Amino acid sequence: MTDVRNPHVHHIAELSDDEIFAAHESGKLSVRTARPLKTQRDLSLCYTPGVARVCTAIAEKPELANRFTGVGHTVAIISDGTAVLGLGDIGPRASLPVMEGKAQLFDRFAGLNAIPIVLDETDTDRLVDVIKAIAPSFGAINLEDISAPRCFEVERRLIEDLDMPVMHDDQHGTAVVILAALANACRLLGRDMAALKVVISGAGAAGVACARILDDAGVTDIVMLDSRGVIHSERDNLNPVKQELAARTNPRGVTGGVVDAFTDADCFIGLSAGSIPEEALQVMAEKPILFSLANPNPEIDPDLAYRYGAVVATGRSDLPNQINNVLAFPGIFHGALAAGATGITPEMKLAASRAIAKVAEEHLDIEHIVPSPLDPSVAPAVSKAVAAAWRDTQN
Amino acid sequence: MTDVRNPHVHHIAELSDDEIFAAHESGKLSVRTARPLKTQRDLSLCYTPGVARVCTAIAEKPELANRFTGVGHTVAIISDGTAVLGLGDIGPRASLPVMEGKAQLFDRFAGLNAIPIVLDETDTDRLVDVIKAIAPSFGAINLEDISAPRCFEVERRLIEDLDMPVMHDDQHGTAVVILAALANACRLLGRDMAALKVVISGAGAAGVACARILDDAGVTDIVMLDSRGVIHSERDNLNPVKQELAARTNPRGVTGGVVDAFTDADCFIGLSAGSIPEEALQVMAEKPILFSLANPNPEIDPDLAYRYGAVVATGRSDLPNQINNVLAFPGIFHGALAAGATGITPEMKLAASRAIAKVAEEHLDIEHIVPSPLDPSVAPAVSKAVAAAWRDTQN
Repeated sequence: MTDVRNPHVHHIAELSDDEIFAAHESGKLSVRTARPLKTQRDLSLCYTPGVARVCTAIAEKPELANRFTGVGHTVAIISDGTAVLGLGDIGPRASLPVMEGKAQLFDRFAGLNAIPIVLDETDTDRLVDVIKAIAPSFGAINLEDISAPRCFEVERRLIEDLDMPVMHDDQHGTAVVILAALANACRLLGRDMAALKVVISGAGAAGVACARILDDAGVTDIVMLDSRGVIHSERDNLNPVKQELAARTNPRGVTGGVVDAFTDADCFIGLSAGSIPEEALQVMAEKPILFSLANPNPEIDPDLAYRYGAVVATGRSDLPNQINNVLAFPGIFHGALAAGATGITPEMKLAASRAIAKVAEEHLDIEHIVPSPLDPSVAPAVSKAVAAAWRDTQN
Repeated sequence: MTDVRNPHVHHIAELSDDEIFAAHESGKLSVRTARPLKTQRDLSLCYTPGVARVCTAIAEKPELANRFTGVGHTVAIISDGTAVLGLGDIGPRASLPVMEGKAQLFDRFAGLNAIPIVLDETDTDRLVDVIKAIAPSFGAINLEDISAPRCFEVERRLIEDLDMPVMHDDQHGTAVVILAALANACRLLGRDMAALKVVISGAGAAGVACARILDDAGVTDIVMLDSRGVIHSERDNLNPVKQELAARTNPRGVTGGVVDAFTDADCFIGLSAGSIPEEALQVMAEKPILFSLANPNPEIDPDLAYRYGAVVATGRSDLPNQINNVLAFPGIFHGALAAGATGITPEMKLAASRAIAKVAEEHLDIEHIVPSPLDPSVAPAVSKAVAAAWRDTQN
């Protein structure tokens, strides 16, 4: 159904509480035996005494675990429940429905076994220790909804210490999709992405990763905003992550607030709460690209966004160009596991982003700069590109 | 197929390596979405934005997690890989096939979601901390293949600290089935179980738990053997668990070795490696009950066992009366979860044992003192009995 007042809005009928709770009754996952256990012989093959033969083989040759256990297609979705959706620190049990939902998506789009693990622990050192201790149970680790700045250190240390793919999806999943959308917006508008002046609002997990991947992709003029204004190297009290950002971004030495950041900017990427005033849109360059991704309320009111923007994207499923990390994470983990990767490199993330953009290219227009989250061809394309990127770095 | 030389042996054709490895290819579990995710609306219900409503509800009222997540039917199978089958300390990854096999059985017999968690950690304090940290992910914890005596302290501390069912299956699952088998053997032979003189060989996880449950069930004359002989209170260097055993068992103050322990005994329960000489069988009371449960080689050679014993049981699937803990754990955990139990009490274990014995009673004979491991009526009967026992203790 299209809204007569705003032709960009495709309403889906309001979700009722009853319908939402019914969809969660008894949880959303099912852990089943992958083969029938009917006879005494089946039991003897899968459990004692047969299983001992497989245990011994893996003890002698550890890499056989990838073949004769599920680790090669099993991802842990690990959260401490401190930064869940827009709800903040709601604790481990209350965050479980998000992790179960994410596990459904891993199944639906990549056929992976995904296991929700929510932790009653928030201390950085102990989080790292706990996750390292359980790591042999899985083939890869998807960190989820861990608050910044702890999420950066937790991810960094796990990547250092573990020989398996580890990725904090709130950072990189979102960033990968944003880069794909931005590349396609530039393609549509005939612009050079590397020459864009980009403003990113929000220096949490997604904002930081977005700045990093844009930088990796060749975008040089990035200005970041947090709740205190533009991030620049003269500012006091920057945490180490923001210090790194200050050094890596803002080549024109912009200071001040929102309007200063927006002046002459070609592109806005909103990854924060808060709202952007019309005044800021008026000082941007002509026909800006506006990605305002806060959910459920975009930083820029959609009416304003469509009035000022040449291309508009949001995080909402009822508006065109939904930036949804489900386009990235199933294929990224699938590809990393398929290639036997021991990590997820910047090259693999860039390859994922290019693959997503390429799927959308076939039907590229102003309302379709990214594929639909339901497009089943995305995850296989991403997986293939990610696996190839890993193999390339090994040669 | 019945062995012509020994009518008690029902051979199943030898398991070939090829067949065993084929049964393990890609692992033995499958984690799937419990409902289809086809439309944008399905995504919005199960993931954002709908899921936020459920998270908020659980944050406000934590007990709703039992209804709107999978925790109410999810069991973690947790091991550090230090005492796996007869293989010993083979480490976490190599133990994974056992945990996957056990998860298959939880599915097959009780319809529970079971998640293998293998830990790269063996220090008792840190094991306890790690398991407590991941506990909110699950509704119950099945500890598995953790070496003695650490397994006793790990289980005790988790039971103290966690408000959910925790059970080390190598201890209690086996003990529950042994008690059921012993009760039915006594019923068949017209003996009073409480008056039996019982020898238990092995003071590891299963031996200790077996002594405790027999004591709970009213058996007073138990003599325990470990690798150094009879456990009695005058012995040096007993660890705390064996000190407790020495105080609780051996009322006649037996000392010495195997033959001393067996003299006049009515029942032998073998939960160790090693072999029992014929000489020991010759000094037992008339028509003894012989459970020699070591796998694959029973402590008493089957030929001798059938010659001397009135009722014989083993751990082997190719001999009658297989004592297999699959008769106990699926129903125990199912019942504890169904009742919303915050622990697994001695009464619940005794109830499980009585339920198992009762299922076998219908076709009770010398070769059928316990039900078949494949009998689908066992787990529901155990679950019902366990749940009722929990409710009784709450009134």
